[in-house]
Amino acid sequence: MTDHPYAYWARLTQLWVSQQPAKRFPQIHPTAVVDSTAEIHPTARIGPLCIVEEGAKIGEGTWLKSRVTVSSFCEIGNHCLLHSGVVIGADGFGFALDNQQWIKIEQLGKVVIGNHVEIGANTCIDRGALDDTVLEDGVILDNLIQIGHNVRIGKHTAMAGCSAIAGSSTIGAYCTIGGGAGILGHLHVADHVHINSYALVTHSILTPGTYGGVFPIDENSQSQKNAASLKQLHSLRERIRTLEKNSKP
Amino acid sequence: MTDHPYAYWARLTQLWVSQQPAKRFPQIHPTAVVDSTAEIHPTARIGPLCIVEEGAKIGEGTWLKSRVTVSSFCEIGNHCLLHSGVVIGADGFGFALDNQQWIKIEQLGKVVIGNHVEIGANTCIDRGALDDTVLEDGVILDNLIQIGHNVRIGKHTAMAGCSAIAGSSTIGAYCTIGGGAGILGHLHVADHVHINSYALVTHSILTPGTYGGVFPIDENSQSQKNAASLKQLHSLRERIRTLEKNSKP
Amino acid sequence: MTDHPYAYWARLTQLWVSQQPAKRFPQIHPTAVVDSTAEIHPTARIGPLCIVEEGAKIGEGTWLKSRVTVSSFCEIGNHCLLHSGVVIGADGFGFALDNQQWIKIEQLGKVVIGNHVEIGANTCIDRGALDDTVLEDGVILDNLIQIGHNVRIGKHTAMAGCSAIAGSSTIGAYCTIGGGAGILGHLHVADHVHINSYALVTHSILTPGTYGGVFPIDENSQSQKNAASLKQLHSLRERIRTLEKNSKP
Repeated sequence: MTDHPYAYWARLTQLWVSQQPAKRFPQIHPTAVVDSTAEIHPTARIGPLCIVEEGAKIGEGTWLKSRVTVSSFCEIGNHCLLHSGVVIGADGFGFALDNQQWIKIEQLGKVVIGNHVEIGANTCIDRGALDDTVLEDGVILDNLIQIGHNVRIGKHTAMAGCSAIAGSSTIGAYCTIGGGAGILGHLHVADHVHINSYALVTHSILTPGTYGGVFPIDENSQSQKNAASLKQLHSLRERIRTLEKNSKP
Repeated sequence: MTDHPYAYWARLTQLWVSQQPAKRFPQIHPTAVVDSTAEIHPTARIGPLCIVEEGAKIGEGTWLKSRVTVSSFCEIGNHCLLHSGVVIGADGFGFALDNQQWIKIEQLGKVVIGNHVEIGANTCIDRGALDDTVLEDGVILDNLIQIGHNVRIGKHTAMAGCSAIAGSSTIGAYCTIGGGAGILGHLHVADHVHINSYALVTHSILTPGTYGGVFPIDENSQSQKNAASLKQLHSLRERIRTLEKNSKP
Repeated sequence: MTDHPYAYWARLTQLWVSQQPAKRFPQIHPTAVVDSTAEIHPTARIGPLCIVEEGAKIGEGTWLKSRVTVSSFCEIGNHCLLHSGVVIGADGFGFALDNQQWIKIEQLGKVVIGNHVEIGANTCIDRGALDDTVLEDGVILDNLIQIGHNVRIGKHTAMAGCSAIAGSSTIGAYCTIGGGAGILGHLHVADHVHINSYALVTHSILTPGTYGGVFPIDENSQSQKNAASLKQLHSLRERIRTLEKNSKP
């Protein structure tokens, strides 16, 4: 998606939409539940059945389409678009183990989202534990994505559907994360890194480039044979070493 | 799930349910937000806190259980059942890159869903970019599934939870897609194809059959040894070739 | 997360929160849709735009934050916390095949959730087919998790984001399931089993320990070479056997 005709096409579709008759919804739909302490910019639109909790901020021209939750004190920048079912600022998954029981760590941070960010349907972005979870300007997220607490995503990074970032990882700018890909917690991914679909990032990636790794799909009986052999791969490697030793004169 | 006793059991449970006292909800729950231009069949039921936007169509006997979004101009056929949290017709994930920034491509298509379709909780089906996203009759989708823009799913295909289809792929009829499985974009999957759980379809599949591929689970230290060897598999293969050459008389 | 300082920290954050001024929401928010036959404990809080259907039970001190669905006859114990977008008790994914068409099996069981359970945003827990789906005391679930019908999860088990358990599997107590990990249906996982992120459990695990298995991520051209070799791994193993036979004196 890098060629100029495509960008031209994008602008054409925007022109088409801008010339449609204006929507009839009020700026804040009467069924939305907006706390009196929330700061909603006069040009923002809060759609039906949205929730904006105490102290939350919604920026200029930003649109919460419908059934969006913005939790207490979370901040959404200008010209953002949040689709139906999005949850901003639910508690991060933080618990301490005490006598084999989980003790909740209250999540005291918030979510801070920059300008021109789009977030797809039913995507969840958790609030930080102490510091904040941050999405920089121009980030675009598809549907059903999970962003853990204290994650930071750099500007203009794009994530496809069903991908996920675990807590406290930082992702650089201009990255793309493929559908269903995951990034474990407490890692760092540099700028201009591209992760292919369904890959799991298990260590920090400090060099720009394209990364991936997924078991190849195959006719089922074939893939099961290969999977069975894979369970012995380490010992196969040892056997190759032995053969090499023995084959030497 | 092919034997007749099972189908008999299914019909028995339906009989049981049909004999329960009728639910007391009105056909359109007073908390639902239904646009005045939406066409709701008189026998359809729109549950609490649902949203049906302008120009949307809901067919005969179809039931949106609760907290379901049907976006503008999307069409749901007859005798469908949509569970809580479903989002039909959010924007597809379409952006063009211009000067390292993402320009939104307005999504001008809609979603068209056939008859006797069931859609699980929090599943998302995006509207098309220009053409429509289509689910044919009898498709059944589990929870938390992502269907990208301009996908077409053939009749009586079933998808298990957390599976996903990326944009513009077409899936045949009578397929089954296992839980967590994915299908990349712009691919074609033939009729009567079965994809196992957690497999990623990376190329079109034109021959009916069962396909899969997933790294086998193992005791952790064992699986890590095998994963480490896997990173050298290509060179191991070269070493086997060398050994074979040298072992020839 | 086992050390005592961490548990101490958890209790400190709880103290901090307990000293904040009380929230101003009423116990049952006026926009919540609560059936008259539901049993809500007087100390429970039902947040905005939640749905509690007929015969459901919500225990002492339990809090449905907002936009939570608790379907008919499901039971939530005491001191639970359910985040925005959670769906409890949607129909399990049960269908019988009859003449290549899917016949719905009505889901007649319910969901029963113990005490001190926390459930993350947009997570779905399906109702049982005949018996119930059960979460025991102290279970903690992150966001976007899928729990199939008739699953049972033992006490104090933790599941990270985007993980999933297919129908009728039983998970022991004190387990941890990593992010994006999956457990196929009709399996049993013992107590004190730990599944790493993105692994798929394809058979029952009866021995406590840590299990995993995921294709290692790598620079893309490298990982594609290894994936290609993986498709021939079974035959590579045969070639190693042949070499070994031939190398024997």
